[in-house]
Amino acid sequence: MPNKKSITDFKTLARTISLVENEADGFELILEQLQPNNIPVIGFTGPPGAGKSTLLNAVIGILLGEGKKIGLVLIDPSSPFNLGALLGDRLRMSAHFTNENLFIRSLATRGSLGGLSDKIMEVIEVMRAFAFDYIFIETVGVGQSEVEIAGLADTTVVVLVPEAGDSVQAMKAGLMEIADVFVINKADRADAEALANSLLHQLQINGRENIPVLKTVAVESKGVKELLDKISSTEKTEENAKRRKILLAEKALRVISKNRMKNFDVEKMKAELNEQKDNFNLYRFVKKFL
Amino acid sequence: MPNKKSITDFKTLARTISLVENEADGFELILEQLQPNNIPVIGFTGPPGAGKSTLLNAVIGILLGEGKKIGLVLIDPSSPFNLGALLGDRLRMSAHFTNENLFIRSLATRGSLGGLSDKIMEVIEVMRAFAFDYIFIETVGVGQSEVEIAGLADTTVVVLVPEAGDSVQAMKAGLMEIADVFVINKADRADAEALANSLLHQLQINGRENIPVLKTVAVESKGVKELLDKISSTEKTEENAKRRKILLAEKALRVISKNRMKNFDVEKMKAELNEQKDNFNLYRFVKKFL
Repeated sequence: MPNKKSITDFKTLARTISLVENEADGFELILEQLQPNNIPVIGFTGPPGAGKSTLLNAVIGILLGEGKKIGLVLIDPSSPFNLGALLGDRLRMSAHFTNENLFIRSLATRGSLGGLSDKIMEVIEVMRAFAFDYIFIETVGVGQSEVEIAGLADTTVVVLVPEAGDSVQAMKAGLMEIADVFVINKADRADAEALANSLLHQLQINGRENIPVLKTVAVESKGVKELLDKISSTEKTEENAKRRKILLAEKALRVISKNRMKNFDVEKMKAELNEQKDNFNLYRFVKKFL
Repeated sequence: MPNKKSITDFKTLARTISLVENEADGFELILEQLQPNNIPVIGFTGPPGAGKSTLLNAVIGILLGEGKKIGLVLIDPSSPFNLGALLGDRLRMSAHFTNENLFIRSLATRGSLGGLSDKIMEVIEVMRAFAFDYIFIETVGVGQSEVEIAGLADTTVVVLVPEAGDSVQAMKAGLMEIADVFVINKADRADAEALANSLLHQLQINGRENIPVLKTVAVESKGVKELLDKISSTEKTEENAKRRKILLAEKALRVISKNRMKNFDVEKMKAELNEQKDNFNLYRFVKKFL
């Protein structure tokens, strides 16, 4: 049985995350030795401009005021055109940037085809070795990232704005399934009520009428306390407990699958792929790599 | 060297797809023996209501009129509330449903968290053993499916409507990366020009100014011929050839990864997971399954 290690300061935490992110020698042993705490992991997702950062800042502000210790992971799409900008905006917005009870880590997403960082799961497991009261993950919903966040967080908060209206239709089916809490931010604007009704209707059709639809005005901290209460109570529902078990199994599968592919030489395969004719049989080709 | 088998009639094709989909005995041997043709695979994606089906029907109508053989895969989100409805709508809309040169296959998506059918890649590989002139995949963009389609198709057509306007913002970053052709359908409505300009601007920022933005009115077959021309020419660009290689490597990796997990007993793992305490270490836990 290996030693069980907790992490007690932010400097060690930051360094450990880096070791794991970069797959430094021995990173697997580090992961195995960490003693995770049972910390609620809350994901915030939604379209750019919905005010996720402002809302999250307000939520975190309340918790820090209560002396809570908070971990925050910011995930950015890797699109070259907005990476810097988004990160910059969000960091500037974080009024609590220098608070000694707040630990912030930014992760850029990996592939060109969307998808969360390959290491996000490991980073969160490392963070759980520090005795945070809450871990928050913020991601900009671009394609699959809002679905993937649901595989990492215990509770997923989907933030929308009134203007989203009918055209969130595109995302709705996916969002209906992942949201534990819907928030309509900037709810002082027109159409907030219409969007709320539309969401409630969709939730009902999907048999998820227990999912709350809240209204907030983040810049004025309106509705933020209610959101926090809802997050805490959602944590404890039976449905959530059931879903956590499913997510946990998916996480474990991903770790195992990654591990089984660990020593696979991707470059060698790519080189051999390049020599194939257009009409080669993929399944015959891969046989030698199995 | 196994025999290389082509498929020459739709009945055999349908039966072979079912064998592979259901993982019937020997399905892996079937996959290895198929002789794939070099067929362009075109993905159509976009929000519900954008008119993808109508547009695709118009495109397919032209090709069938030229005596071409067409394979069509319809992918539906598995959400219980809309599965039947969407499938029904699309099948009704297919004016060419009974055309002897058109083969249609519907696939429902699998998991509760979005994601394309686990078997879609295999189904398309089976279809490539029939000498189609084109294979089309249609999917409703809900979360990750529009990103995943880009991993399957040689060319991805993203269909939007003028009303989408600013609120496709949410999807834009992802769509910018996967689209080979943008289509603004229902372009006789207001705001078509504004959306076109907005897309062109975003494409420029993303260094993808070579991506065409077309306008169509599918119900009147306006712009459909131009779309078809664009699809054919996009097929042959160098960028596309480069991307195809990347996609191919990703496909191969998925096949290999699936295979390495084949004999893994998920249920046994789930049972053991259920016995873990809340603060167990995931990496220590999975060790016994590696």
